[in-house]
Amino acid sequence: MTAVALMLAAAAWIAYPGDYALWRGNDLQARRIEFGGRGYPVFWASYAPHPLVEFRRDVDLKTAETVDIACEGVCRIKALGLPPLQGVSSNKFTFPAGRYTISARVYSQGAPPSIYINGPTVKTDSLWRADWRMEAAWLPGETPPPAESIEGSIHDRPSGMALATRHAGPVSIRRTRANHLVADFGREVFGFLKLEAVKGSGRVRVIYGESEPEALCEDFDGPDQWEYVDVEPGPEHRLAVSRGWRYVQVIPDAGVSVEGVSMDEELCSLSRAGAFRCSDERLNRIWEVSARTLELTSRELYIEGAKRDRWTWSGDARQSYLMGYYLFGETRIARDTLFYQRGGDPVVMHINRIMDYTFYWVMSVREYYLYTGDRLFLEQVYDRMVSLMDFAIARLDGNGRPHDMPGDWVFIDWAPEKLHNTGGVTSFEQMLLVEALETMAEVCGVVGRGDAALWRERAAKLRAEVVPLFWNPSKGALMHLLKDDGTLDDQLTRYSNMFGLAWGYFNGAQRESVLENVIFNDAVMRIQTPYMRFYELEALCCLGMNDRVLTEVRDYWGGMLDEGATSFWELYTPAEKGEAKYAMYGRRFGKSLCHAWGAGPVYLFGRYVLGVEPVKPGYAEYLVTPNPGGLTWVEGTVPTPHGPVKVSVHDGVANATGPAGCKGVLRWRGRSILVPAAP
Amino acid sequence: MTAVALMLAAAAWIAYPGDYALWRGNDLQARRIEFGGRGYPVFWASYAPHPLVEFRRDVDLKTAETVDIACEGVCRIKALGLPPLQGVSSNKFTFPAGRYTISARVYSQGAPPSIYINGPTVKTDSLWRADWRMEAAWLPGETPPPAESIEGSIHDRPSGMALATRHAGPVSIRRTRANHLVADFGREVFGFLKLEAVKGSGRVRVIYGESEPEALCEDFDGPDQWEYVDVEPGPEHRLAVSRGWRYVQVIPDAGVSVEGVSMDEELCSLSRAGAFRCSDERLNRIWEVSARTLELTSRELYIEGAKRDRWTWSGDARQSYLMGYYLFGETRIARDTLFYQRGGDPVVMHINRIMDYTFYWVMSVREYYLYTGDRLFLEQVYDRMVSLMDFAIARLDGNGRPHDMPGDWVFIDWAPEKLHNTGGVTSFEQMLLVEALETMAEVCGVVGRGDAALWRERAAKLRAEVVPLFWNPSKGALMHLLKDDGTLDDQLTRYSNMFGLAWGYFNGAQRESVLENVIFNDAVMRIQTPYMRFYELEALCCLGMNDRVLTEVRDYWGGMLDEGATSFWELYTPAEKGEAKYAMYGRRFGKSLCHAWGAGPVYLFGRYVLGVEPVKPGYAEYLVTPNPGGLTWVEGTVPTPHGPVKVSVHDGVANATGPAGCKGVLRWRGRSILVPAAP
Repeated sequence: MTAVALMLAAAAWIAYPGDYALWRGNDLQARRIEFGGRGYPVFWASYAPHPLVEFRRDVDLKTAETVDIACEGVCRIKALGLPPLQGVSSNKFTFPAGRYTISARVYSQGAPPSIYINGPTVKTDSLWRADWRMEAAWLPGETPPPAESIEGSIHDRPSGMALATRHAGPVSIRRTRANHLVADFGREVFGFLKLEAVKGSGRVRVIYGESEPEALCEDFDGPDQWEYVDVEPGPEHRLAVSRGWRYVQVIPDAGVSVEGVSMDEELCSLSRAGAFRCSDERLNRIWEVSARTLELTSRELYIEGAKRDRWTWSGDARQSYLMGYYLFGETRIARDTLFYQRGGDPVVMHINRIMDYTFYWVMSVREYYLYTGDRLFLEQVYDRMVSLMDFAIARLDGNGRPHDMPGDWVFIDWAPEKLHNTGGVTSFEQMLLVEALETMAEVCGVVGRGDAALWRERAAKLRAEVVPLFWNPSKGALMHLLKDDGTLDDQLTRYSNMFGLAWGYFNGAQRESVLENVIFNDAVMRIQTPYMRFYELEALCCLGMNDRVLTEVRDYWGGMLDEGATSFWELYTPAEKGEAKYAMYGRRFGKSLCHAWGAGPVYLFGRYVLGVEPVKPGYAEYLVTPNPGGLTWVEGTVPTPHGPVKVSVHDGVANATGPAGCKGVLRWRGRSILVPAAP
Repeated sequence: MTAVALMLAAAAWIAYPGDYALWRGNDLQARRIEFGGRGYPVFWASYAPHPLVEFRRDVDLKTAETVDIACEGVCRIKALGLPPLQGVSSNKFTFPAGRYTISARVYSQGAPPSIYINGPTVKTDSLWRADWRMEAAWLPGETPPPAESIEGSIHDRPSGMALATRHAGPVSIRRTRANHLVADFGREVFGFLKLEAVKGSGRVRVIYGESEPEALCEDFDGPDQWEYVDVEPGPEHRLAVSRGWRYVQVIPDAGVSVEGVSMDEELCSLSRAGAFRCSDERLNRIWEVSARTLELTSRELYIEGAKRDRWTWSGDARQSYLMGYYLFGETRIARDTLFYQRGGDPVVMHINRIMDYTFYWVMSVREYYLYTGDRLFLEQVYDRMVSLMDFAIARLDGNGRPHDMPGDWVFIDWAPEKLHNTGGVTSFEQMLLVEALETMAEVCGVVGRGDAALWRERAAKLRAEVVPLFWNPSKGALMHLLKDDGTLDDQLTRYSNMFGLAWGYFNGAQRESVLENVIFNDAVMRIQTPYMRFYELEALCCLGMNDRVLTEVRDYWGGMLDEGATSFWELYTPAEKGEAKYAMYGRRFGKSLCHAWGAGPVYLFGRYVLGVEPVKPGYAEYLVTPNPGGLTWVEGTVPTPHGPVKVSVHDGVANATGPAGCKGVLRWRGRSILVPAAP
């Protein structure tokens, strides 16, 4: 029996699928506070959880049974068709013997309606169905989605859940200008700052920095992250909002003093289960700092940066999901982030307002299913996938291609030059749309709903167009934009060419041409974000060029280490030195120095160096195709829903062990063997 | 300047239109607690307020100005296109001089996002626009709705608002069986019961009754409204939920004693501005008890009954709105009830799950506009009218007629025999649909959106069908149901015949036939609810038969008075005596004895006896056509947005005075004169 099946055998809190993620996600986004303590809500449409949900389950009880009940909100429990049930007490209930349907209607405003029933056989779990449309949705032919299970005991209201914390202190602290404190926590940290031994009443200014210059900058419009705190005398004043920083400067008003600082470090909500070691200590350090970067941005949901925005962004999140499958032993926040990002209905804009981010979201659902085997999630989210794609398709141009429409943001990347993303169709978006359409076809097949063939046909048509439409023979590459006048814009970028390599768009000659004319051509605009370097290097991994990939990783991620990084950055340009390297968005310290998309090596090493990949959903079958890329030795662990897969290559010999209950194949130097179970 | 215009000149809290009503309405519905303290959530789809709303206003400031700001939630204020604004403090802000757009993005989960800005010229009011779709909705051609203003000062968070209360006591109290208390509050009351001078710790059972037998019934499944209360010793224990009752029985467990009871009476949220007096004291008493009944069911929103369900029902509410226009000087809870009832999008069922209640809701919007002139509301609610009608139209049958569909409840009335409402098209629903379609045409014209002609054409087609389809020449009346086999069902009811009279469906001969064969024919199923008696008598009023109407009112409503009513009932059958008169829904005390739809005389007397009716929105023009129906004298007051209209008929002479700023015409005995302004 797998871990998933075991979980289902126990009672759990249940809610309408996604509602807890929406509620927590809304709250999480609202923690962005900048420039002196002012709030900074998101700028995309936000959805609330449903205030009223009905849960149903058919039962066939041989004997009457008394159950424990806890509820978030007000609840009414009925055995449909039977006389009203009598409560034994406010939290005990007796169900009569018989075959009937239990209905629990739960109302809660703010925190989502949820319920926990625990009896000998009647237990709330994902075999219950949840619906906000009330009884109309239980008509024949209508199928409300399975309820979502939420971790926690019957005594813990889901609304009370918070990340665990532990006390931590700075590695050094110094006093400047008499009453100013500057503390260094030694590396990027995330949590609640605490002011210690406060004397006097008044205001304290706290400036956070991921770099020391940022924390030392006292200009009001310098560091993004500073706030005024009103304090009273006391041993400890804990700040209200959790944040990321390495350095803090504390500036008390006259009449106030602060003796020290420490913090309640908020722990990553997932535990590390993946590992990577190799013969190159620089790569080991890169993997370790990548893992730390991902942990710092793995909160209630995956957020994009520890300092700023602390928001969830779908394109960034796709990379967090992929990294998370290799670093963490569970995938709960992937599911919750997917739910939050999708939001509710009606759909009124692209996810995060960004066209690419809609397509990444859809693709991420397929990948989530492949890595986790969580078919339940597909059933829960299917209707929302359809309504999102309906929205996206309604915005395609007359040829059915993804053209920017009023209100859309076609992002792609923070590039050193302006990308020509509008006024036509980009090859990049068209290729992402193909992936989204293929995902729809696949999910239809899994849940047994919708018309898979129709989605597949749409995908195939658009996919077949890409090279004919965007290939410029004189450049030997895909061009960035097909303009509205039907001609190709002359901007040449790496983006769609990378995807074309990874996703098999090219014949042999085209592939060689793209490598030579784009990927290995320094005259083509270099990528400066780890975000797109992730895909660029993945493309090379797909071609087996791991030597080259590891060299690039040593240079690029290693370059950040050489700059003192304890977590990886939003953007890195080796040429930028001094304070300039901290600037972005026209702000002196605008750059995030702990950015989820900086952690790509966690994925690249697990997926392409250790070479572990699921080929059937939930790792029912998987491949191990190590490619040490010139390393003397490499070893590591990749978590799967069944247990860890361990891989090593030493002295030119690859070995792997895997968990029982699934089928792994190790491919090494042209031979394939079944991965044996761990001893 | 009118009251409405004066209101707009001051700053106010603003929110997304309808969100406060949703939030309060959800909370209000959740107060239904029955049979020992168990919650009883509604069974229709419920919508939450939007957690994130952006408010915008164009300004052209000659000089910089500093404003006070208060916010429910987290807020970010920008002057679009200008550098970030500096806050003077957490609740003061300075806007620079210039011409630009102010944006305030407000996030709040649970209580709806709202904001109050008060400066010399920058003030939040309904000239701001509100949108939950964020920036996409500010594109050219898209028009977010005007924000909704909420009463209260900058110091009062909208989420903290509650109805005012005042202390009140019973008129008599007696002790039964040593420690039981039975209290009579003298008439129906609404509020929070208080147990006084509690000694000992333990449990107290409280049984509420609108009649004495109900409060004295100690069976667990007897009275709907009873609860266990855990008490500690103390001078006063106030119960958590407000309810309606006249009698209470208090039964302390052994070891506990309660010395007395009193209450915090929750005051009606609107103040009485209408009045009616005439030469018949029985009618005066009927008007007074009707007014009291409406006040007891006018809470944060209009609810249908004081004891049970304390829910908002759209068909019931339509009558509350109409009564409220004649009783109250303001119409705020009409608007809020309309907002709550409509809910949000997507529409997944009829309002309250009842087909008729969808159509009544739409009709009520037209009437609201006619009585209040609140064009702003139409702009705010227009999109939701369209999506509701889209839902309803998608459920029409192949002939475009309102046929019951799976999940629909075709209610019409609580009748003494089963109504044949399904398996075909009812004449009743078709006539309501015509009214709804005509409303859409009218609202399109007012807000300048949509295709009024298309709505009008649909309405005309369906209207023209009614008599040909449903008229049975041998019965000389409209029949109830056109069955799926194309034949008329043989059930004859009053309902559509009443509407046919009131809404001009008949020629002279048909009218006479319907009066003789249906309305004055005691062999046709009598109506037993004040709900449908309202429409039956209105039909006669439309024909000028006020003598007969007043006689029926004296008999029917007077009959309830003779039974001891201090408020009017959900259903009244003169033949039912003793405890049987309290039964309904198969429950001994299931009947509500304080039911909003019992208060019809408040409307009938104001509208048809005093004869005051608006003919242009907001009483810009109105008619006064008194018809004392045989009374020696009558006088009264009808509130309008401009001020009171006073009408009297004494000694065969009618007089009226009205407010300035609008045009009234008094019609009396074939003559018309302009209503003079009050001295």
